[in-house]
Amino acid sequence: MQNFVFHNPTKILFGKKTVPSIGKETAALGKKVLLVHGKDSIKKSGLYQQVLLSLAAAGTEITEHGGVQSNPLLSHVNLGIEKARENCCDVVCAVGGGSVIDEAKAICAGATVMHDVWKFFTGKKSVKAPLPLTTVLTLAASGSEMNSGMVITNEQTAQKFGFANKQLHPKTSILDPTLTCSVPADYTAYGAVDAVAHVLEFYFTTTDPHTPVQDRLMEGLMINAMESCNRVLAAPNDYRSRADLMWTATLALNGLTAAGLGKVGFPMHMIEHSLSALYNVPHGAGLSAVIPGWMRFHLVHQTDRFAQFAQRVFDIREGSATEQAEAGIRSLTSWFEKVSVPTNLTALDISAAEFEKIAENADTLARVWRMKDYDSEKILLILNNCTAFNSD
Amino acid sequence: MQNFVFHNPTKILFGKKTVPSIGKETAALGKKVLLVHGKDSIKKSGLYQQVLLSLAAAGTEITEHGGVQSNPLLSHVNLGIEKARENCCDVVCAVGGGSVIDEAKAICAGATVMHDVWKFFTGKKSVKAPLPLTTVLTLAASGSEMNSGMVITNEQTAQKFGFANKQLHPKTSILDPTLTCSVPADYTAYGAVDAVAHVLEFYFTTTDPHTPVQDRLMEGLMINAMESCNRVLAAPNDYRSRADLMWTATLALNGLTAAGLGKVGFPMHMIEHSLSALYNVPHGAGLSAVIPGWMRFHLVHQTDRFAQFAQRVFDIREGSATEQAEAGIRSLTSWFEKVSVPTNLTALDISAAEFEKIAENADTLARVWRMKDYDSEKILLILNNCTAFNSD
Repeated sequence: MQNFVFHNPTKILFGKKTVPSIGKETAALGKKVLLVHGKDSIKKSGLYQQVLLSLAAAGTEITEHGGVQSNPLLSHVNLGIEKARENCCDVVCAVGGGSVIDEAKAICAGATVMHDVWKFFTGKKSVKAPLPLTTVLTLAASGSEMNSGMVITNEQTAQKFGFANKQLHPKTSILDPTLTCSVPADYTAYGAVDAVAHVLEFYFTTTDPHTPVQDRLMEGLMINAMESCNRVLAAPNDYRSRADLMWTATLALNGLTAAGLGKVGFPMHMIEHSLSALYNVPHGAGLSAVIPGWMRFHLVHQTDRFAQFAQRVFDIREGSATEQAEAGIRSLTSWFEKVSVPTNLTALDISAAEFEKIAENADTLARVWRMKDYDSEKILLILNNCTAFNSD
Repeated sequence: MQNFVFHNPTKILFGKKTVPSIGKETAALGKKVLLVHGKDSIKKSGLYQQVLLSLAAAGTEITEHGGVQSNPLLSHVNLGIEKARENCCDVVCAVGGGSVIDEAKAICAGATVMHDVWKFFTGKKSVKAPLPLTTVLTLAASGSEMNSGMVITNEQTAQKFGFANKQLHPKTSILDPTLTCSVPADYTAYGAVDAVAHVLEFYFTTTDPHTPVQDRLMEGLMINAMESCNRVLAAPNDYRSRADLMWTATLALNGLTAAGLGKVGFPMHMIEHSLSALYNVPHGAGLSAVIPGWMRFHLVHQTDRFAQFAQRVFDIREGSATEQAEAGIRSLTSWFEKVSVPTNLTALDISAAEFEKIAENADTLARVWRMKDYDSEKILLILNNCTAFNSD
């Protein structure tokens, strides 16, 4: 186990009927609220009205910042920062999925500094005294509700970059699984893929060969992400399954899985971010299209680890380590097919003619994230491995 | 999954060479430190000197409160409270195992109120504005370093009672596994038993029949507690195994396993606390003497759950659910024997003539902890089940 600091101060209120606490939780941090949200779905569901009521009852003044889109844009972040400044907001409340929470975090960081917020994303500036944040989560996926990271797309440079800072942990996040019952099948599956991907990234990029405590935690989370997603797709209104998927996705990227692993990377996310930036594909779909190809590429370097993954996550016990490892990748790809997400780039209508552009774009992020073992040439090899994968 | 609040703000600094941070972490909270510790072992190891140096370098004034014993005593807590008040201490730093940290928490709570500190333990008073706490952990066992609970023995009433309050989370805990390398085999095993017991209690007392996320987490922690303990006993100075055991014990009772389980109980700890209070047996030894008997008693009510435990923790796959469940209990008892901890009360020299007294004592705690499904009669039945258990 490598040395680590673990400090996750986010308070989670989990369960039915927790939304009415948002007013009190937010008002404890500030009285002038920037309310960040996305599309109109929260108005149709009544969540928006419920949050407004709770915030008003707690005596706060509200400035609205709606219209956040998935793969949130830098220009819209800047608009939010302006509103927060103009209205002297002293707290931000995000109501939505990972995109809304990510944009809200960027606004929290940007509202208290005078320089361009993008400088945080390119590593040129450090966060100082950001606004505090509360959240009401509506999608089980990104884990942003209990971590300090965010991802924003700069549409001028076509870059989807992310960064994290410990001051950007939400103070309180409200997780009511009933809010996710209306999420359609495709986005439910994309969310589960995202949670699985967060675990896979760390599981296969740790350079510490001995991490048994973290391994069991990660394996359990992957099993639960897949099993609960299967149950949700079979019965979309089943509270228990929605709750399992929601809590699993939160735990999958709240710092606990990574604690002790040493330096870990996000190679699959790195490539996916370029797909989102260039073609605006849903994040989970981009991930599932890249994962099988990346795993097959990476397999030879870590056969025993892939075999452990196969044994523990898919109960594969027959065959050599290599055979088990390959069976594990096939099993994961089968699960992607089962939940109807793409398993290769062809399924996303991205042809080989695009690969050089994607590799160059991803390489820029590899430099920012200091992933020294990746360059555009290697990324190109991986992309060529992602063309026609399925579980056969 | 049941509704829950999860909020664990303790900062963990884990790994080699982390002890020198204790001064800075403590001084950030206060300048007049009550330094709580136990026996002279930390002076022999040099840890004491290292902590003093770090606290002094950070510009703090130190008041010493040494001599905390295992199963810490209320009279000694009161002594610490007096010292903290007399010296206007504004922060407490605990250096030791769970007993030292538990006593330090009680001092933190008691130093800022004028009433008897025992009233917190009997549920008659609530904690208000306690002193902040930092810790340096020397034993992998209780989890006190990352939770808000504590257990103290009132020697006048022969009661070993515990309570928890969210304000009593340590602010920072330093976990350097090398500090545990000198822990002898018996106390290493007692610590691992304690960690396993913390998980078992919740695993078998949750009344929610559907907790798959928490189940995998708990099963993984039990496997790691046993496996890392085995490795430590085979090679006491192996850093990796000490680190695995230390982090496992912390995760076993930091709120995460319980989040979502609804109301859980501590029936095995309840009985063990009476053994410690009446006979001063080591906590882990009392637990391992009670666990097999309690499990055998409880088996009929939850056969499928015991079968799942057997399947996932001990890889038992043959036989009926009842046969698997029984095999699981035998496997755990075998592990107790392997690490040389008692598996029944006879091994602790506690005869059946004592059982009524123990049952009455435990019943008092059952009332305080509001465990309505336990009374002295039922406890007596369980004790009679704990007389001569082994793995045969």
